[in-house]
Amino acid sequence: MIVLLTGGTGGAKLVQGIHAEVQPEEVVIICNTGDDSVVHGLQISPDIDTIMYTLAGRIDPAKGWGLANDTFVVLEELARLGADTWFRLGDRDLATHITRTQLLGEGLRLSEVTSKLCRALKVSTTVLPMSDDAVSTRIVTTDGELSFQEYFVRARFEPEVTNLWYQGVDTCAPAPGAVESILAAATVIVCPSNPATSIGPILAVPGVRKALQETPAQVIAVSPIVKGRSFSGPAHKLMHALGVEASVVGLATAYRDFVNVLVVGPEDDLCRKDIEALGIRPLVTSIRMDSLADKQQLARKLLGVKSWTM
Amino acid sequence: MIVLLTGGTGGAKLVQGIHAEVQPEEVVIICNTGDDSVVHGLQISPDIDTIMYTLAGRIDPAKGWGLANDTFVVLEELARLGADTWFRLGDRDLATHITRTQLLGEGLRLSEVTSKLCRALKVSTTVLPMSDDAVSTRIVTTDGELSFQEYFVRARFEPEVTNLWYQGVDTCAPAPGAVESILAAATVIVCPSNPATSIGPILAVPGVRKALQETPAQVIAVSPIVKGRSFSGPAHKLMHALGVEASVVGLATAYRDFVNVLVVGPEDDLCRKDIEALGIRPLVTSIRMDSLADKQQLARKLLGVKSWTM
Repeated sequence: MIVLLTGGTGGAKLVQGIHAEVQPEEVVIICNTGDDSVVHGLQISPDIDTIMYTLAGRIDPAKGWGLANDTFVVLEELARLGADTWFRLGDRDLATHITRTQLLGEGLRLSEVTSKLCRALKVSTTVLPMSDDAVSTRIVTTDGELSFQEYFVRARFEPEVTNLWYQGVDTCAPAPGAVESILAAATVIVCPSNPATSIGPILAVPGVRKALQETPAQVIAVSPIVKGRSFSGPAHKLMHALGVEASVVGLATAYRDFVNVLVVGPEDDLCRKDIEALGIRPLVTSIRMDSLADKQQLARKLLGVKSWTM
Repeated sequence: MIVLLTGGTGGAKLVQGIHAEVQPEEVVIICNTGDDSVVHGLQISPDIDTIMYTLAGRIDPAKGWGLANDTFVVLEELARLGADTWFRLGDRDLATHITRTQLLGEGLRLSEVTSKLCRALKVSTTVLPMSDDAVSTRIVTTDGELSFQEYFVRARFEPEVTNLWYQGVDTCAPAPGAVESILAAATVIVCPSNPATSIGPILAVPGVRKALQETPAQVIAVSPIVKGRSFSGPAHKLMHALGVEASVVGLATAYRDFVNVLVVGPEDDLCRKDIEALGIRPLVTSIRMDSLADKQQLARKLLGVKSWTM
C-alpha cells in the first residue's frame, strides 16, 4: 500500500502521476484540511476537492483547482445579493459544497462525506481528510491574523508572515484509517505541497508524526522548493515560520525525524551532502511536473526507490 | 396602507398589478410559508421568492416562478452526485437559497432575512413571511402524507387528497408586523391563491384570522376559482379538505367570517345571490390576469372598491 500526504495544487500533480501508475485500490491519500472554511454558509474543503477532482479526471487543468468547464452564475448572483465573492466558486464546484454541507448537517463525519463524494465521482482511491475535526491554519501577518484562504486568495500572499499556527489541531483526532494506513504502508510519499500550510497541519494531527517515525514504510518526501523558491504559491515565504530556511536543506531539517528519502531537483544537486548530513538520502531527479509524462516519470522514480537506510 | 395575503404564482399576478398602481411604501405583503422546505440542505421559501422576484421584475414570466434567464448547472451536477432533483432550482435562484440558509444559520429570523433579500433585490415593498417559525402544510393522500412540494411538484397533484393540516401552525407566532399591518390597513386583499395551501396556512397563524375579523379595513378576496375549477394548480382538488365545495360559493363560505367583498368572474355571475346570502358583497369582473394590462385593470378595480357593509 502507498500512502500520500498532500495539500492541493502541487501535491495533486504528483497524485495524478501516482494514479496513472498504480491500481487505485493500493493508494490511500491523506489530505490537509487546515484550509477548510465556511463560505456563504457552505463547507469548503479545498484540498480534498482538488484531489478528488484530479482523481476523477475533472480538475480544471489551467487553474489546478475547481472543475473543468465550470461556470460562475451562482457567484455572480451572490455578488448581486451583496456577498463577498473573492473566493471563486464555480457552479459545478458548488454542487460538491452543497452536498458536503448537507451531509455534515445530517451528522455524517467529513471522512464519511468524502467517501460518499468519491463514490459519486467514481473515484476508487481512498481519500481521507487528515481529521474529521475542524482544524484551521491561522497565518499571523503584519496585517493581522488571517485564515489561509484570506491570506492566500484574498491577500494574494502579499502580507509579511510572522508566525502561523493550526487552530484546533491539538485536540483533533486523526481520521479513521489515517494512522493505521501509515503504519501498514510499504511506501509513504510526502507530496511537494507547502510544508507550512499543507503538510504541516497533517504532521501536527496527534499520532501522525509518530506513525511516520515508527512505520516500517519507506518515507519519501518530494521537495516543493527549487533553489530556495517554491514552484508556485508562498511555500518559501512561510518556511521561516516553521523555524527553517526556505531551501531543500531547510525542508530536510523540518522532515528529518521521519523522512528516509528527499527528492530534489538537479538545481539543488549541491545540497546532497547537507541532506545526507541530516540522515536523509537525497534523490536528485527532475521534479518539474508540467506534463502528465513528467508526473508519471516522477511517480515511477518514487515507486522504484529501494529500501535504504543510512 | 394596503395589505395583501398571498401564496405564489396566482397571487403574484395580482401583486404585480397592485405594484404597478400603488407606491411600494404603501403595500405590505404577507406570504404563505407553509410550502417552505429544505432541499439539498438549503432553506427554500417558494412563495416569498416568487413574490420578491415578481416585485424585482425578475420573475421567469413563462414559468411564473424562479428567475428569468436562469441556468441549471448546479442542479445537473447535484444529479450527477446522486441527488434527487425533481425540485427545479436554477443557479441564480440558488444564490437566494444559499444566502437565506447562511443568514438563518447566523441566527437571523426569516422576516429579517426576507427584508435583507428584498433590499439586495431593490424591492422596497414590505414582504413578510406569515411567521418566522416553521410551518409545513401536510397533504394527506391515498398514497400517504406528503409535503406540499412532494404533492405539488413531485406527484404533480395527482394523488387523491383526503385531508390536509398545517404542521407547527398552532404554536407559531405571526411575523413581527403582520397582525399590526392588517389592523392598520385601509384595504386587505386576499389574493387569488389556493385557499387550502396558500391562504389557509396564513389564516391559521394565531392572531391573523382574528385581526382580519376585527380590522376596520375593507377585506376583499379575489377568487382563484372559476366555475368550480382553479385557474391553475390544484385549488379545486383541495377545497373539499377545508370542508367546502370547490366553487366561489364554497370560497365565500370559507372566508365568510372576515371577507367583505368577493371578486368573481362573469362566469360565476349566477352565484351573486348565494354569496350575498353569506353576508359578502359579490363584485363581478374579469379576474383573468394573462397580460400586465389585465393585472393592472383588476388592481384598479380593487383599489376603487368603496367601503360597503351589508
